[in-house]
Amino acid sequence: MRTLLVTIRFKGGQYCGYQVQKEGVPTVSAVFQQALEQVVGHPVRMKGCSRTDAGVHARQFCISFATGCTIPAERLPMALNRLLPGDIAAIGCREVAEGFHARYDARGKRYIYRILNSRLRDPFWEGLAWWVSAPLAVGPMQQAAKLFVGRHDFSAFCGAGSSVEDHVRTVWRCQVQKEGEQVVLAVEGDGFLYHMVRIMAGTLVEIGRGSRPVGSVAQALAGARRCQAGMTAPAWGLYLDEVFYGDFSLVHRVDKGEKADG
Amino acid sequence: MRTLLVTIRFKGGQYCGYQVQKEGVPTVSAVFQQALEQVVGHPVRMKGCSRTDAGVHARQFCISFATGCTIPAERLPMALNRLLPGDIAAIGCREVAEGFHARYDARGKRYIYRILNSRLRDPFWEGLAWWVSAPLAVGPMQQAAKLFVGRHDFSAFCGAGSSVEDHVRTVWRCQVQKEGEQVVLAVEGDGFLYHMVRIMAGTLVEIGRGSRPVGSVAQALAGARRCQAGMTAPAWGLYLDEVFYGDFSLVHRVDKGEKADG
Repeated sequence: MRTLLVTIRFKGGQYCGYQVQKEGVPTVSAVFQQALEQVVGHPVRMKGCSRTDAGVHARQFCISFATGCTIPAERLPMALNRLLPGDIAAIGCREVAEGFHARYDARGKRYIYRILNSRLRDPFWEGLAWWVSAPLAVGPMQQAAKLFVGRHDFSAFCGAGSSVEDHVRTVWRCQVQKEGEQVVLAVEGDGFLYHMVRIMAGTLVEIGRGSRPVGSVAQALAGARRCQAGMTAPAWGLYLDEVFYGDFSLVHRVDKGEKADG
Repeated sequence: MRTLLVTIRFKGGQYCGYQVQKEGVPTVSAVFQQALEQVVGHPVRMKGCSRTDAGVHARQFCISFATGCTIPAERLPMALNRLLPGDIAAIGCREVAEGFHARYDARGKRYIYRILNSRLRDPFWEGLAWWVSAPLAVGPMQQAAKLFVGRHDFSAFCGAGSSVEDHVRTVWRCQVQKEGEQVVLAVEGDGFLYHMVRIMAGTLVEIGRGSRPVGSVAQALAGARRCQAGMTAPAWGLYLDEVFYGDFSLVHRVDKGEKADG
């Protein structure tokens, strides 16, 4: 048995998130599992790096699983892509240590939130960015973004319905940048609460529109009440951009072909 | 009566082109006309800048029409966008001289053809670029692209089914550039034959793959036979990028509000 870590990319618009409890709703994990089991030829117990909300996209989403199949890791993505629909693709795969868990072994993640700040909507960004037509002042958003960096109680930035009790997380980087007509938020941290980045994005947009002061972020972090933060930005602007697996001693490449040849 | 020139942007994936003769197939023009007539409040005779194939996209597509309605030109896009589906949006509108025709008054156009040259496909470019997994040599493609520039008989680059007799067109600019994982072709000219840019793109890809010499472009232009050029690249990589209306003396802004005030 080998443990493989496969990285996929998906547009989330057609799915009820990566994984949900309900039966009969389309999820990324259900679609991917079907393709994966067909390729490896046996039932698979997949471990996803996180749960994403309905409509959320991923540029890199990682899934680990144990398998007895002998297909070389580097060939797996192409085999999977023949079976996957157009909005999901495997983009990488490598062998990892036995027992590796895509979620528990993740050291952190980066999320991107895209805001299209134009007077008129853009068909090419439909469902891929949050269209905000009112002009946004990027300077105050950039100042406010800095206040998220550090170890904080993010209770004010946690959506109702979360079952997690510890709301303390560390944000390593939180940056707002203008990219053409878009205002792009990038957040890196060791962990994220339910709706955390979407509430951060919604709060920053309220600051950019001038309907909320920059300092309200510090107040919300200190007060730790949901009502002190802003609205929850829509799911379709959010991208899981990268999952960090810091300690690569965890990952040992076992290339049997090379060994046999050497 | 005023003549208005409205610019729209659309993703073509869901449509059988801008306009077709057949009844009952979804076209951009039919969807747009319905929204336009609802906004202006009377039947409209629209003149589109060109016919695009099924699946082709447009970043700027221009439509002229005469109207008796008094809505200010700059307000029309937002009114239209409320009625248009997500994959079509009006992005601009201005008043032009009486009798202005979006097609006959166009001096030229720029098309973009996007080739995703990566080993694995990308869900975010699904239906928006031609995925070519074999490595492309960009240098030879760039050399070959230059050969298209000038006044030529483009018969070899005209698809079967064209009813146009004169196949001589002038290409002002033809450039191949690498943009990350993409190879992007930009072509500007005074006019384009049926499938012309798609056959140019298909021919350039064959050159990039090494299955056709650079000089074959000059031979195909001289020989003027379709069989001398390469394959027709798929519709979904093609974008009408801009329509040029060179002589702006044709366009006289008549802003009645300003006149009345002055």
